[in-house]
Amino acid sequence: MMRTRFQQGLDELRGKLLVMGGLAEQAVDRACQAYIERDLQRCHMVLENESRINAAEREIDELAFDLLALQQPMAVDLRFILAVTKINSDLERVGDQSVNVVERVMDMIELPPADLPIDIPRMATASSAMVRRALESFIEGKAELAQAVLEMDNVVDRMRDEAFINLTRKMNDSPEVTRQALDALLVARNLERVADHATNIAEDVIFWVRGADVRHNVAVANSSTRHPIVDRS
Amino acid sequence: MMRTRFQQGLDELRGKLLVMGGLAEQAVDRACQAYIERDLQRCHMVLENESRINAAEREIDELAFDLLALQQPMAVDLRFILAVTKINSDLERVGDQSVNVVERVMDMIELPPADLPIDIPRMATASSAMVRRALESFIEGKAELAQAVLEMDNVVDRMRDEAFINLTRKMNDSPEVTRQALDALLVARNLERVADHATNIAEDVIFWVRGADVRHNVAVANSSTRHPIVDRS
Repeated sequence: MMRTRFQQGLDELRGKLLVMGGLAEQAVDRACQAYIERDLQRCHMVLENESRINAAEREIDELAFDLLALQQPMAVDLRFILAVTKINSDLERVGDQSVNVVERVMDMIELPPADLPIDIPRMATASSAMVRRALESFIEGKAELAQAVLEMDNVVDRMRDEAFINLTRKMNDSPEVTRQALDALLVARNLERVADHATNIAEDVIFWVRGADVRHNVAVANSSTRHPIVDRS
Repeated sequence: MMRTRFQQGLDELRGKLLVMGGLAEQAVDRACQAYIERDLQRCHMVLENESRINAAEREIDELAFDLLALQQPMAVDLRFILAVTKINSDLERVGDQSVNVVERVMDMIELPPADLPIDIPRMATASSAMVRRALESFIEGKAELAQAVLEMDNVVDRMRDEAFINLTRKMNDSPEVTRQALDALLVARNLERVADHATNIAEDVIFWVRGADVRHNVAVANSSTRHPIVDRS
């Protein structure tokens, strides 16, 4: 019966992490819409949602803690719970990056619109997709999906490098839009960070999921005398 | 006897986290020196050390895992171990930020030196001190020290805002150094991120240390029927 309640707890944890992922993704998408439409109201929505995301992070951490305190989990569940707390932090920071984006957007809205050589929506879509897929790879326990996310990161990095070169040129050619170009460049950086967080999640999936595969048998035996910690001392 | 080995494990975990903190701080300091002296060799040292920092992160995570798997920790130890895994991630990313700094420095070294209105060493010193103090607040279990770190973050944010304004003006006035100014601005952003990671660590200290204080008695009783998870379902 204890085991059943524990399993329910794991399901709850999984569910909460998915909700958290949804909030983080929504923040990126809204920030991008705010950029496209120069929409101050949508900026405020992202700012207001940050505290919701922070609260969700703490709730997940507390639930993870409770599950660990409730009973001695098997190694595979332990790895799952630790991975959740790691991924949780990254999702919260995706929310932070979205806040950084709308701060730049709010600066841009005050300035005359400028035609800039950068495709922010494309970067936002790619970064946001990486977060979603990284989270899927975790929920489905598929390290190969996580591997695909790592490869997507190069694409976003390339977009950022291109943006860097094109926007530097723009600043040189049209100094009157330097500030707008700089804002756009920083938005690109923030989106690159979102992609980095997705990469972190994917790396954690590979580390924890593979680890769970490799160490599962040892774990089930759960013999403390055979435990790796002994080998280390 | 099990308990003793567990305590040794906790000490080892603490020690490894301190070493990790030292590596992260060193990376920031070296990156800053590389900036000041336009020193390519020092840039390479930071790049080479990144894999060491990554390896240290994984080792700490594995040790945390082993400790959790070894025995059912008391709540206070459980909170400590979970906090370690969180702080560990932030320290690893301080290392990442240092790599980002030297990438910009390597770009600057290729360009003619420019006199820029930004005090990078001051920002680096402040950010690096925040990381050190955040880690100290954790090791000493002092939430009030962590609170002080949170207040330092405003100082670094103000430096970044000033740099943003001054460097934008510089780009307008002297378009020939736009690229150098942009590099310096991105270095400032990276140092601001280092400060953000210190802030994350401090927040975790407050959350986990305070939580441990508040919940310690419940934890020692360790009664699963009274456990908070029951209240949630």
